[in-house]
Amino acid sequence: MSQSKAAISPRRAENFPSWYQEVVRQADLAAMSHVRGCMVIKPWGYGIWELMQRELDQQIKDRGHDNVYFPLFIPLSYIEKEAEHVEGFAKEMAVVTHHRLEKRDGRLVPAAPFEEPLVVRPTSETVIGETMAEWVQSYRDLPLKLNQWANVVRWEMRPRVLLRTTEFLWQEGHTAHATEAEAVAETLEMHQVYESFARDWLAMPVVAGEKSPTERFPGAKRTYTIEAMMQDGKAVQAGTSHYLGQNFARSAGIEFTDTDGARKHAYTTSWGASTRLVGALVMTHGDDDGLCVPPAVAPHQVVIVPVLRDSSPAVLDYANRLAEALRAQRTRFGRVRVHLDNRATRPGDKKWQWIKRGAPLLVEVGPRDAESGTVSFRNRFEPHRQQQLPLSDFVTSVGEELAGLQDRLLARATDRLDEGIRRDITTREDAESHFREDGAGFALAGWCGSSGCETGLKPLGVTIRCLPSHLSADATTCLVCGTPSNHSAIWGLSY
Amino acid sequence: MSQSKAAISPRRAENFPSWYQEVVRQADLAAMSHVRGCMVIKPWGYGIWELMQRELDQQIKDRGHDNVYFPLFIPLSYIEKEAEHVEGFAKEMAVVTHHRLEKRDGRLVPAAPFEEPLVVRPTSETVIGETMAEWVQSYRDLPLKLNQWANVVRWEMRPRVLLRTTEFLWQEGHTAHATEAEAVAETLEMHQVYESFARDWLAMPVVAGEKSPTERFPGAKRTYTIEAMMQDGKAVQAGTSHYLGQNFARSAGIEFTDTDGARKHAYTTSWGASTRLVGALVMTHGDDDGLCVPPAVAPHQVVIVPVLRDSSPAVLDYANRLAEALRAQRTRFGRVRVHLDNRATRPGDKKWQWIKRGAPLLVEVGPRDAESGTVSFRNRFEPHRQQQLPLSDFVTSVGEELAGLQDRLLARATDRLDEGIRRDITTREDAESHFREDGAGFALAGWCGSSGCETGLKPLGVTIRCLPSHLSADATTCLVCGTPSNHSAIWGLSY
Ligand SMILES: [Zn+2]
Ligand SMILES: [Zn+2]
Repeated sequence: MSQSKAAISPRRAENFPSWYQEVVRQADLAAMSHVRGCMVIKPWGYGIWELMQRELDQQIKDRGHDNVYFPLFIPLSYIEKEAEHVEGFAKEMAVVTHHRLEKRDGRLVPAAPFEEPLVVRPTSETVIGETMAEWVQSYRDLPLKLNQWANVVRWEMRPRVLLRTTEFLWQEGHTAHATEAEAVAETLEMHQVYESFARDWLAMPVVAGEKSPTERFPGAKRTYTIEAMMQDGKAVQAGTSHYLGQNFARSAGIEFTDTDGARKHAYTTSWGASTRLVGALVMTHGDDDGLCVPPAVAPHQVVIVPVLRDSSPAVLDYANRLAEALRAQRTRFGRVRVHLDNRATRPGDKKWQWIKRGAPLLVEVGPRDAESGTVSFRNRFEPHRQQQLPLSDFVTSVGEELAGLQDRLLARATDRLDEGIRRDITTREDAESHFREDGAGFALAGWCGSSGCETGLKPLGVTIRCLPSHLSADATTCLVCGTPSNHSAIWGLSY
Repeated sequence: MSQSKAAISPRRAENFPSWYQEVVRQADLAAMSHVRGCMVIKPWGYGIWELMQRELDQQIKDRGHDNVYFPLFIPLSYIEKEAEHVEGFAKEMAVVTHHRLEKRDGRLVPAAPFEEPLVVRPTSETVIGETMAEWVQSYRDLPLKLNQWANVVRWEMRPRVLLRTTEFLWQEGHTAHATEAEAVAETLEMHQVYESFARDWLAMPVVAGEKSPTERFPGAKRTYTIEAMMQDGKAVQAGTSHYLGQNFARSAGIEFTDTDGARKHAYTTSWGASTRLVGALVMTHGDDDGLCVPPAVAPHQVVIVPVLRDSSPAVLDYANRLAEALRAQRTRFGRVRVHLDNRATRPGDKKWQWIKRGAPLLVEVGPRDAESGTVSFRNRFEPHRQQQLPLSDFVTSVGEELAGLQDRLLARATDRLDEGIRRDITTREDAESHFREDGAGFALAGWCGSSGCETGLKPLGVTIRCLPSHLSADATTCLVCGTPSNHSAIWGLSY
């Protein structure tokens, strides 16, 4: 394909951050709004998020969690309790100070101030803890396994659409258990849910592992993470699971009477994933023609575009018949999702719009197809190669074709990840030259376990992304200090 | 059943508002939080909302609407634009004035004030309008049919759980069309969706009709509503649909180039329904033992409670086998939802908990059932009457049984509504004595069409709920002034 034919400008290799912004725009995923840091999620982007959400929600429910909804606003006193333990506490949060707008001299001004300001939830952790303390009295009330889908707000000074926004959508799970063993098992189970969800639904391979101490969630005894590698070699933390021991229960007062009559603090966990997954999807599967959406989360898996400007009834009939036949087919991700695009827009414009959006299969129906009973289609991997099949062959093979595209996306991303994990970066000097390059990827190397070395590469922007569960470094010395290492670590730049 | 046996105190007849609060509490639906006017929606209440949401969402999507997400925050200037036209504008809204919390002298204080305060969305109307103006350029971009599920905030001075809360969850649809006819048809279609959704899924019959002018949504040319009658005779407005003409497009600047090349303003609509539907469900189907959830929206349609304190393996095995067999069954609302409640709580407590929550079918499994292969169950209508069937008969009939319960709930509510619509209230004096009674219900009577009479019964708290589409009054004179009437109107008290 010639240089001039890419639909997205700049190309990935030219300027990755600009390419990302441009794909988000051209694929109609989302846009920054007039409120700094907040975004509008457009139909195609929201459709992808809804499919992610539906599957993850089912997996969460299948494991016995109940969905709940907690208030958007948090009393300042709850945050103050947290702040007691933090010197020089300062947090970027949206603070609500008034509950009325009044007109004065032709302008609107805030009126009716609160005695105690409210904070827009940066997470619902504190209120959920407060409530758990009320709901949990006896071992009979345990385990308590809650999950919430909601919007949260953390004021962002350097927002980036979908990846780091002031408001974002997420799920946060919070569970309380009678024993440490049960709470640890819960943490690991949800960690594995995120890992397999990313792989099997988003076609996004990840490095799963535990966070090192400074990267842990505040108050957590252990934090597990899945780290995905973007095409520029940087990591996106795509889902975290925290084992909180009894720390959180102690500060929230979650106590229960055990079978032996003793009062005990519960063992708790929390875990979350957010709309940043949509951003990670773009940087994993996008190419110089736009996004490629894995069929499992594509709002439309097959898009049918009639190719006549004034579509003849025969062409439209044929297109409708094809759509119906396809909708009766299934993939391992459920019923095939088909969209017939009969807007008055020019067919060529539509075609490129769907390529940029990353619809997995694109069918163009012209009069000749309608006459001969054939289907002319292209897949998103090869937007310039049109294939043709008799209608019935196309229909019966569409499930396989879509599953095949999903597998190909995963294989391509897995190859990238495997190639991007370098085992030959073993010294500080190696790291310094390696991470200077664009697209440097991860270094799988040793770590001696000291906190000095844990943060030793921060000047390069490099941190330990995780201590991987399924990978060991070849090197047996610490990447930073060169002494014998106790741990294998994934080092990298990150979003 | 003796007076003492009701599970909820007070009974409906004694004190309806207190009964309502108590059912919401005892049925574990929701609770007011520490933030005034905001609620915690508990698993059982949220589960009902999720099922409502899933069905309504599907119906909205089936009609070609796309889901989107708009920011939580709205710039003050957007609200100011609206306020320009309103003398003495004052609105209860949450105003965000700062984006940081800092510790000073051991206390947390708001810091980093905004130049322009932000408002927490009371609706997304203004931002969606702004965005539609960007997205719509040509007739090819029309119709634009968007829907959003989100939380919204309107500061409530007299909150009531689920019915009127500062924060609530809802969907708001916004559409733009090239012609008046299309926009009117859209408005009526969504109005009918709400009507049939309430009837077929919530077993909640409603009076559908148009609002009279003073009850219209500001700026709307026509507002359609579904009005449900609660057991105390008051109305709940359960879903509204607005035809906005070109008014909204003019103020938001939604213009397009039509096929003839002329620039025109679009014709728009909006429509919404909220978590108040859960409150309406309680006041429609609750009784003195708690809530009855229509099977269509019951998170668990069948609850199985093992009746031994230390459940024997045989009993648990049998209960599990029963649960599996039931899960393979279907009703017209999809697969049967079954919950096996094996908490360590006393079986008698569990039983009453599920009765108060309103689970449609409750099965108690004891050793005798396990031995003889029978199922002992009760339905929520007759909590004191246990029935017995062989396992296979129970399993094969469960779909029918659940559908039958749904039909019975609808029939009971329909009888109440029919009886509650009085046709013999024809004069102001009638109205004055009628609406003084508790449980007065609706008056179907005439209205002359004057605005004086439209608001003539406001001193009694009575308004025109709607001009019903499918009902005509017997009376031919205005309920207020006695002159010949042009309209049939439903008059009533409301929430
Ligand atoms: Zn070291
Ligand atoms: Zn009159």
